Amino acid sequence: MSDLHALPKDFIEELKALFGDRFSIAPAVLEHHGRDESSYPTLPPQAVVFANSTEEVAMLVKLCSLYEVPVIPFGAGTSLEGHVLPIQGGVCLDLNNMNQVLSIHPEDMLAVVQPAVRRKQLNAELKDTGYFFPVDPGADATLGGMCATRASGTNAVRYGTMRENVLALTVVAASGEIIKTGTQAKKSSAGYDLTRLFVGSEGTLGIITEITLKIYPHPEDIAAAICSFANVTEAVNAVIEVIQAGIPVARVELVDELAIRAINQYSKLSLIEKPTLFFEFVGSAQSLKEQAEFAQEIAKNNGGLDFEWATRPEDRARLWHARHNAYFACLQLQPGCRIINTDVCVPISKLAQCISETRQELDASWLKAPILGHVGDGNYHVLLAIDPNNPADLEEAERLNSGIVHRALQLGGTCTGEHGVGIHKMNFLVDEHGEGAIELMRSIKKALDPKNILNPGKIFKI
Amino acid sequence: MSDLHALPKDFIEELKALFGDRFSIAPAVLEHHGRDESSYPTLPPQAVVFANSTEEVAMLVKLCSLYEVPVIPFGAGTSLEGHVLPIQGGVCLDLNNMNQVLSIHPEDMLAVVQPAVRRKQLNAELKDTGYFFPVDPGADATLGGMCATRASGTNAVRYGTMRENVLALTVVAASGEIIKTGTQAKKSSAGYDLTRLFVGSEGTLGIITEITLKIYPHPEDIAAAICSFANVTEAVNAVIEVIQAGIPVARVELVDELAIRAINQYSKLSLIEKPTLFFEFVGSAQSLKEQAEFAQEIAKNNGGLDFEWATRPEDRARLWHARHNAYFACLQLQPGCRIINTDVCVPISKLAQCISETRQELDASWLKAPILGHVGDGNYHVLLAIDPNNPADLEEAERLNSGIVHRALQLGGTCTGEHGVGIHKMNFLVDEHGEGAIELMRSIKKALDPKNILNPGKIFKI
Repeated sequence: MSDLHALPKDFIEELKALFGDRFSIAPAVLEHHGRDESSYPTLPPQAVVFANSTEEVAMLVKLCSLYEVPVIPFGAGTSLEGHVLPIQGGVCLDLNNMNQVLSIHPEDMLAVVQPAVRRKQLNAELKDTGYFFPVDPGADATLGGMCATRASGTNAVRYGTMRENVLALTVVAASGEIIKTGTQAKKSSAGYDLTRLFVGSEGTLGIITEITLKIYPHPEDIAAAICSFANVTEAVNAVIEVIQAGIPVARVELVDELAIRAINQYSKLSLIEKPTLFFEFVGSAQSLKEQAEFAQEIAKNNGGLDFEWATRPEDRARLWHARHNAYFACLQLQPGCRIINTDVCVPISKLAQCISETRQELDASWLKAPILGHVGDGNYHVLLAIDPNNPADLEEAERLNSGIVHRALQLGGTCTGEHGVGIHKMNFLVDEHGEGAIELMRSIKKALDPKNILNPGKIFKI
Repeated sequence: MSDLHALPKDFIEELKALFGDRFSIAPAVLEHHGRDESSYPTLPPQAVVFANSTEEVAMLVKLCSLYEVPVIPFGAGTSLEGHVLPIQGGVCLDLNNMNQVLSIHPEDMLAVVQPAVRRKQLNAELKDTGYFFPVDPGADATLGGMCATRASGTNAVRYGTMRENVLALTVVAASGEIIKTGTQAKKSSAGYDLTRLFVGSEGTLGIITEITLKIYPHPEDIAAAICSFANVTEAVNAVIEVIQAGIPVARVELVDELAIRAINQYSKLSLIEKPTLFFEFVGSAQSLKEQAEFAQEIAKNNGGLDFEWATRPEDRARLWHARHNAYFACLQLQPGCRIINTDVCVPISKLAQCISETRQELDASWLKAPILGHVGDGNYHVLLAIDPNNPADLEEAERLNSGIVHRALQLGGTCTGEHGVGIHKMNFLVDEHGEGAIELMRSIKKALDPKNILNPGKIFKI
């Protein structure tokens, strides 16, 4: 970054002519577009452009291609892995003006949105239709960003991730050409799956400008349950049996004993300070009763210490209150701290071993490190609390993260379940896939973006 | 094909040395590997190699790369679109020796299989585990072939297609390098989605040699139902409402009146000769009763002429008997005929219009053309019965197919829901995606297979 060239003057003049006051090099604007939720220092882009349409994105990308200037798409800025940092300089493409829900198709269970629509906004606009969009990462991210990182969240165990919930995309390719990757048909065998190639490509293969998403009817009824266990192994075994039994679990989250302690302190509760499962079941009122009874029996057989369940909205909210506040509660374990969030995912049969060994390693460290898990998917997060002013804390967090990742890889898992690679996990990616698969990804990148202008320097080295 | 060069002598000698009697140029062997279930004439490869392992496939591909000889993977030979025809000559790679279920992981709901395992074989081997694999195309295809064409079938409405049910692949790349595309973790955001790039790539990007598949617990209970309607529009509207209501439909198939007439003749039944829906619901015994009652009400409100449902296995089998025999019954509409099978898929909101207009066009033709539909997905097949000795029949079938495809594309659909492109639908693919998206696919093909040796001449022109 130290020897970045200034942007070509002609390029700047053309951008000004095309975008007027939607082109900016004001320091405050650059600053705002140079950070995300990762622990990296702010790194401002050289310019910011606010595009209003797919056609404008195409114009910008054509210019960036002509002048060989990097272009980095930007939405909510909630990346945890440095995805939006312009590490090779260039123009930040702010897509936040493209924030319209374009159409809702209840009969086809689809919605078409612009990339900067946020997930909560989409659900607000769906509210009166009887449908909802289930993918729910922690942040109120943009749907374009969620596509780019193949995001998921607590509902993935039932509804899948962005991988399963994007039907088609409009994408601006590195040439500036506008591509549609699919139709509104629910399934297709018509050629390469371009949709899923762009989902998870982190802005390195094209700029997503329109998204066709699956939407789902609200479940007839919902039940919530919580149950604590003597240890993580028993809790995970209960989850495996519940899923194997075919009980329709919408969510099942694990909160470990340190996180429960944080919640008790934060919310003045007196939950048993043991690994605890938070369940949500969906179905008809009658079937929910059957399911909850069956789940309770399974929990009990696996050493569940209690099992509380509820169907009335206010009772469900009370049960899940602790989980919903877990992140903020964990932040308060060490006031003023910053969180480094790990994101491994393993086959569920290996999850108990993986978390137990990780917990042991964490307990030997001075960092406070509660664990939250999307346990139905085998995905868990360690919230490594660091003092942002203490470099030793950051180093220790990275050491622990590296151990957590390599343990997951050894157990047949992945270095990232839902946050993506960005610049933070590039080395882990090679360990996970091997050089052959990375070379294959690299050759796709080179074929689709021969000048390396699309969010360069992310996922893998060129 | 007329001016194919002979295979290089050194190449043949090396193959003989490596594969011994698993290398063949015997005319009967070549003949057997030069046809599929499409209407194309037999086109034998120049040689056939039977590989026993991923390593042997890699050796073969390395040799084919060195000598720039095409290599075409071959399994059950059940393609409907000419996928396995060696239109640029070369070696047919018969994978049928690689037919082992390698491991079953009930806790992780996964099975790992070699590519020539057939779907019925997998379910037979899963029988005592309580799990099954749901994707069920008409033929007893190999799972490798089902990956390659992104196959689906009657269960897709609930369980998805091969797109959703493959977790990871081992693939031999065009260089001969062995690549793993994923881990056994249920979800991942670790780089480009190579798994889904290979699923549906029809052998043009790599040779699939190992497959990690999702498996599912058998539903607690199953109910079947059939109901006929005055017309297709009412039948499709009933399906839309049933799905919107969140009723857990495992299958819902449409059989049109001509197909019902064929079934009545074939099976000596007296079903009402009207468009008929065949349902399968899954759940607990109690919830099934609720579901069937709800579905019955919806059917009645949409003009359902009757509604018969059953839960006992023998009664369910009786209800579905007609659907299971539909294909063979349709063949008997014109003894000695051959079937040209269309495969469009449209958004379900457009399905009734699409089928009605198609039915009108079909009724104006001399060909007998019953319709079967995976109606929950918007996918339907017209079985165009042709006399294989009458070129006018084939021409008429292709004319009708073209009309059916272009109607589907106009309604926002795809030219192929589940059969793939092969050599039969290459022109339709351009109409569907546009030249820009095809060029993007082409650049991926060139990047991954620069010598164009992997099943060349399929999906799109290079």
